[in-house]
Amino acid sequence: MSAIERLAQEFSRLPGIGSKTALRLVHHLMKGSKEDTRRLASSLVDLADNVRTCRECGNFSEFEACDVCTNPRRDRTVLCVVEEAYEVGVIERTGQYQGLFHVLGGRLSPLDGIGPEELNLASLLERIRGSEGEIQEVILATNASVEGEATSVFLDQEIRPLGPKVTRLARGIPVGSDLEYVDGTTIAQALAGRREM
Amino acid sequence: MSAIERLAQEFSRLPGIGSKTALRLVHHLMKGSKEDTRRLASSLVDLADNVRTCRECGNFSEFEACDVCTNPRRDRTVLCVVEEAYEVGVIERTGQYQGLFHVLGGRLSPLDGIGPEELNLASLLERIRGSEGEIQEVILATNASVEGEATSVFLDQEIRPLGPKVTRLARGIPVGSDLEYVDGTTIAQALAGRREM
Repeated sequence: MSAIERLAQEFSRLPGIGSKTALRLVHHLMKGSKEDTRRLASSLVDLADNVRTCRECGNFSEFEACDVCTNPRRDRTVLCVVEEAYEVGVIERTGQYQGLFHVLGGRLSPLDGIGPEELNLASLLERIRGSEGEIQEVILATNASVEGEATSVFLDQEIRPLGPKVTRLARGIPVGSDLEYVDGTTIAQALAGRREM
Repeated sequence: MSAIERLAQEFSRLPGIGSKTALRLVHHLMKGSKEDTRRLASSLVDLADNVRTCRECGNFSEFEACDVCTNPRRDRTVLCVVEEAYEVGVIERTGQYQGLFHVLGGRLSPLDGIGPEELNLASLLERIRGSEGEIQEVILATNASVEGEATSVFLDQEIRPLGPKVTRLARGIPVGSDLEYVDGTTIAQALAGRREM
């Protein structure tokens, strides 16, 4: 296999990149400077060498503990549970959350063989127990999918007996959307969760 | 800037990859094995180190002359002119072409400052002259865009005086398409180029 085909094959393993897109990327790199290609390669090596998971929360980090966990100004009484590490960034970018995170590393999905043991669940419960009451609220920020909801229900049952208040993200109409295009289940949840003006 | 952000930035320089897709790719790599990431990196280095342009036709190659140019079973009397090196692969995959190629490296586009000097045109004419009549047909396979057509007309004027027959790819209805969805210009060209059954 030629260098071109090998690289195209590697690219096509990435999500959302088919064999045609992969070839287009390879040809783009070949038309550009070799320096650009080498810089992409060295960024990849850097990622493989230096990025690990935070020993506290499971977020991606270049150090043993991540930026959020080591920040003395974060509110240690609130813990936000997300499915995947990149969702930490999604919430961080809102600039509205000051607490800590915990990354599950997935969601319960019995059909795919993912049970509680496959998730970072034991470490979550240990963390809550170990905080000796410091963690007063756990926000469940799993996705609003069937598996995400099931995971939330399960987490609620496990966490509530340990003491903290358990909340979840509000369901409702996304900001900026027309009611006309919002599905019925979302509208029903928005009605049920209506707030006084 | 963190290793994650740096890699995302490198990815987002590639065509068709925005900042969100770039981050998704980085997170995919982080969830996978470090070995996969290193293999992608080494394929990139391999590309930068080993792939160059064929000294004969301008196609990408790992050697001084490409697979097509060095293949003794190719028909040396026909030369197919394409705009970009990846178009060689597009034609090769049909399995219907036995001749040689010449890669222009672009198309005439005065508005973008691309004139005849910016293309591999001198080497094309030199190649035809140097073949001393061996090249009997030059197929112009530039794109069916305005610039591609203009490039073909220009090439025809330059090549015809040197001797070879100059042809171009047929214009017509793409195989498998409904007439209803084919644009008028294409139908007009298909009518003009109609063939006996």
